[in-house]
Amino acid sequence: MESVLAYIEANTERYLEELRRLLAVPSVSTNPENAADVRRAAEWLSEHMQSIGLEHVEVFPTPGHPIVYGDWLHAEGRPTVLLYGHYDVQPVEPIDLWTSPPFEAAVRNGRLYGRGTADDKGQIFIHLKSIEAFLKTAGALPVNLKLILEGEEEIGSDHLEAFVEERREMLKADLVLMSDTPFFGEDLPAICYGLRGLSYMQIDCVGPNRDLHSGSFGGTVHNPIQALAEIISGLHDRRGRVTIPGFYDDVRPLTAKERRAFKQLPHSDRKYAADLGVRELYGEKGFTTLERVWARPTLECNGIWGGFTGEGAKTVLPSKASAKISMRLVPDQRADRTAKLFERHIRKIVPRTVRVNVSYLHGGEPAITPIDSPGVRAAVTALKKGFGKKPLYQREGGSIPIVVQFKKILGIDTVLLGFGQPDENAHAPDEFISLSHFYGGIRTSVYFFQELPHIMEEEQR
Amino acid sequence: MESVLAYIEANTERYLEELRRLLAVPSVSTNPENAADVRRAAEWLSEHMQSIGLEHVEVFPTPGHPIVYGDWLHAEGRPTVLLYGHYDVQPVEPIDLWTSPPFEAAVRNGRLYGRGTADDKGQIFIHLKSIEAFLKTAGALPVNLKLILEGEEEIGSDHLEAFVEERREMLKADLVLMSDTPFFGEDLPAICYGLRGLSYMQIDCVGPNRDLHSGSFGGTVHNPIQALAEIISGLHDRRGRVTIPGFYDDVRPLTAKERRAFKQLPHSDRKYAADLGVRELYGEKGFTTLERVWARPTLECNGIWGGFTGEGAKTVLPSKASAKISMRLVPDQRADRTAKLFERHIRKIVPRTVRVNVSYLHGGEPAITPIDSPGVRAAVTALKKGFGKKPLYQREGGSIPIVVQFKKILGIDTVLLGFGQPDENAHAPDEFISLSHFYGGIRTSVYFFQELPHIMEEEQR
Repeated sequence: MESVLAYIEANTERYLEELRRLLAVPSVSTNPENAADVRRAAEWLSEHMQSIGLEHVEVFPTPGHPIVYGDWLHAEGRPTVLLYGHYDVQPVEPIDLWTSPPFEAAVRNGRLYGRGTADDKGQIFIHLKSIEAFLKTAGALPVNLKLILEGEEEIGSDHLEAFVEERREMLKADLVLMSDTPFFGEDLPAICYGLRGLSYMQIDCVGPNRDLHSGSFGGTVHNPIQALAEIISGLHDRRGRVTIPGFYDDVRPLTAKERRAFKQLPHSDRKYAADLGVRELYGEKGFTTLERVWARPTLECNGIWGGFTGEGAKTVLPSKASAKISMRLVPDQRADRTAKLFERHIRKIVPRTVRVNVSYLHGGEPAITPIDSPGVRAAVTALKKGFGKKPLYQREGGSIPIVVQFKKILGIDTVLLGFGQPDENAHAPDEFISLSHFYGGIRTSVYFFQELPHIMEEEQR
Repeated sequence: MESVLAYIEANTERYLEELRRLLAVPSVSTNPENAADVRRAAEWLSEHMQSIGLEHVEVFPTPGHPIVYGDWLHAEGRPTVLLYGHYDVQPVEPIDLWTSPPFEAAVRNGRLYGRGTADDKGQIFIHLKSIEAFLKTAGALPVNLKLILEGEEEIGSDHLEAFVEERREMLKADLVLMSDTPFFGEDLPAICYGLRGLSYMQIDCVGPNRDLHSGSFGGTVHNPIQALAEIISGLHDRRGRVTIPGFYDDVRPLTAKERRAFKQLPHSDRKYAADLGVRELYGEKGFTTLERVWARPTLECNGIWGGFTGEGAKTVLPSKASAKISMRLVPDQRADRTAKLFERHIRKIVPRTVRVNVSYLHGGEPAITPIDSPGVRAAVTALKKGFGKKPLYQREGGSIPIVVQFKKILGIDTVLLGFGQPDENAHAPDEFISLSHFYGGIRTSVYFFQELPHIMEEEQR
C-alpha cells in the first residue's frame, strides 16, 4: 500500500497531463459530426488501458458508438469488480459562456475546468490511475477487475443493454462500481446507495366529441380541462400523500439508521427553498425534504395541455385535455405494478361525464444497494481513508437506468462511488472537478480495491 | 296591409333572383384580395336601397370596409327602428365540400344554398323586401327606419363602434332590429331575447424559479401544474356552482314565465348528450340545460398548458403552468366586477407554495331585451302572424358585442329577430336558408313594422 500511494504522489502532474489529453478529444456523442472524435476517444482509452497493464483490451463496435473493454483477472479467490464509466460528453453550447475553452482543460482555484472533467472522463481516470499505481508497483490488483466504458451515456445508452445481455458471461462479477455521481458538497464525501424508479403515464381526458363554443355550450357539459384538473387535484390528499390505493404497499420503510444518517447531512430547508425561489416547500407530511426526494415515492405532473393556448382570448370549450404524470418509485415498488394501480384508480374515479385514456409511456425500477452491503461498506471505509473524514450517506431522487439493467441482466448491485459535486456544471458551461476530489478519488479507489476483499471475506464467515 | 302582402306574393320569384345577385358578390371581408368585392357589395346594396325608396343612402368609408346607411323618416310621431345587418361573409374554404358553388346560389329541397344566404345577406334582404313592399304599395312605412349595414362583422366589427359613436345623433332610435340569429329549429320560430356576457381571464401559476428534474426534486416543492389543477378544481362545488364569493350576487333570476317558456321548447337532454358524444351532461344543479346555457353564469377553462407536452416522456417539474378561464355572464352581472371577484378569490385561495399572476384579457357585458318589452312583444306577434304559429322564447349563451355597443352608446335594446336555423352551416360549406323562412321572414318583417307602433303606443298609455 505504501508504495502504491507513493507512486500516486510522485505522478500527480503526469496524471493531470494525461487526463488533459483525454479531455481534449471532443467526444460529443449526440453530434453526428463528432462521430470520429468519439471513436478517437475510445481508441485513446484502449491504448491507455493497455499501457497501464490491463489485458484483453478491445474496442467493441456497436450500431452506435463503441464500447471499450479491458480486464485484469489474476486475483484468484478474490471478488470481481465490474467498473463502468462513459467517455462520451455533453455538447458545449453555449460556447461563449465558458471561461476557458471546453476542450482545453485549465486549472483555476484548485479546480480543473473542461467538458468531461466531472462527467465522466475525469471520474473514469481516477480509477485508471489507481489501477496503474497497483500494477506498476505491486504488479497486481487486490481484486479481479473488468472495465466497460461506453460512448453513448449522454444519448440514452441505447446499445449497452444488448452488449451486456450478449456478453453476460464475460461481464460476470460480484458488483458494479460506477463513479458518475456527486458528493454532497465540496469536500463533503458521500456515498449514494439508492435511486428511485419511474412509472411515466399519460391521461387523455375526452369530453364532447368536438371543440365547442364556450358561450353556446358552456355550462352544459363537463369541460375536460376541469375534469382533468379534478382528477389531478385528487391524486394527493391534504397531507401530500398520493391517494392511489395500494401505492405505498410495497414501499420499503426507511430504517432508523438511514433516517439518522440523512439528518446528519448539512441541509437547510430555508436555503433549499430560497435557491428554488419558493416561499414554502411542499410534500408528504412526516418526512424531511431529503427523505421525500430520496426515499419516498412521489407523483408529479410533467406536462398538461388542452384547448386554446395562444395569445389573447378564444372562447373554446375543448374536446380534450391531456397530462403527463410520472411517479418516482422506491424499493420495493415495481414500475409495471404501479402503472397498473394508477390506471385502475383513474378508471375508478373518472366521472361518467367524460372518458379517459390512460397510457403507460415509460418505466424503470428503483435500485438500492443497502448501506450494510459489502460494496457500500468498502466504499465508506475507502472514502474515510481517502478523504480523511467520515462520508455521508445519500440517495438520489432520479434514476440511472444502467444500474437497473446491471441488476436485471447480471443480477448484481452497483456501488455509486462518485467524486463530483452538486455544482459541477455537468451539462453546462464551466464544468469542473476539484483537484482535491480528483486526487482524493484516486486514493479512495486504491483503498476500495484494497478493502473490498477483506469485507467480503468477513461477510462470508 | 292586404296590398303589401299581395305585392310580396306577386314578386317572390323576382325577390329571390335579386338576392341571388347580391349573393354572387364574394364579399369575404377577411381576404385582402376580396376588398374590391366587399366594396362592390356595399355599392350594390346602396343602389338597391335607393331603388326601393330609401332616402339619404350613403356608403360611408371606414379605415376598413365601408358602412352603408339609408333611412325613411316620414312616420311622424311613430317610433324609430334602427335596422342593423352585415353584408360581408365568411370564407368558403374548404371549397370542395360545397354541393354547388358558394357564390352561385342554388335552390334544392326548399332551401337556398350559398355563402351569405343565412349569415347575413339573406336576412338583410328579408327586411329590404318588406320595406320595398310598403313603399311601393302604401308609399309609406308604419315606422321611421334607419339602416346600417356593415362589412366587417365577420372580422370583429372593428370600425363600427367609432362610427356609431361619431354619428349617435344620426342613429338615434327607439330600438335596434337585428336579424342574424337562428330559429330554434326548422319551422320552429323563436325569438332570442338575451345574450350572455364574458370575463376572460388568464392565470399563470409559478412554482420554482426554473424547470427542475422531476426525479431530483419531485416531492419537495409544489408542482405548479398540480397547484393550478387544485385551483381550477376548487372553482366549482359538488353541485356544479361557481365558488367565487359574490359571483351570483347580481344575477337576475329567471322569472316563472321565462322558465315556463323554456320548458315548452322541444329539447331533449338525451339527444343533446348523444349529439355531443357524452354519456352524461354536467352543470349547475337545479337548472335545466337550456336555463344553464342561456340564463345562468358559468365558468369554463378555455385552455391550459405547462411543462412537457411533446411525444414520449420527459421528466420535468415545470416552473410554470397557465390556464385561460372565462366566465359567461348574465344580466345584471358586470364584466369588470366579475373579473375583480375572480382575481380576489384566486389571490385568496392560492397556497403559499406557489405564486399566481391573474390577468383580465377581455370582457363584454350581458344583454337582455325583456320578453315584456314592446320590441319583443311586437316580434312575437309578427312571428305568430308571419309563420302561423306561436313563437318560442330563447336566449343565446354566447355574446354579440354589437348589441352591447348599441346599448352603451345609443342607450337602446336590440330585438334579435333572426330567421336562420341551428344547422344552417353559417360558417361552413353548404350554408343555406329555408325558403319558408325567407318568405315567412318577409311577412314577419311587415307585421313587425305594423305592430310596433301600436304596442308602443299602448305601452305609453
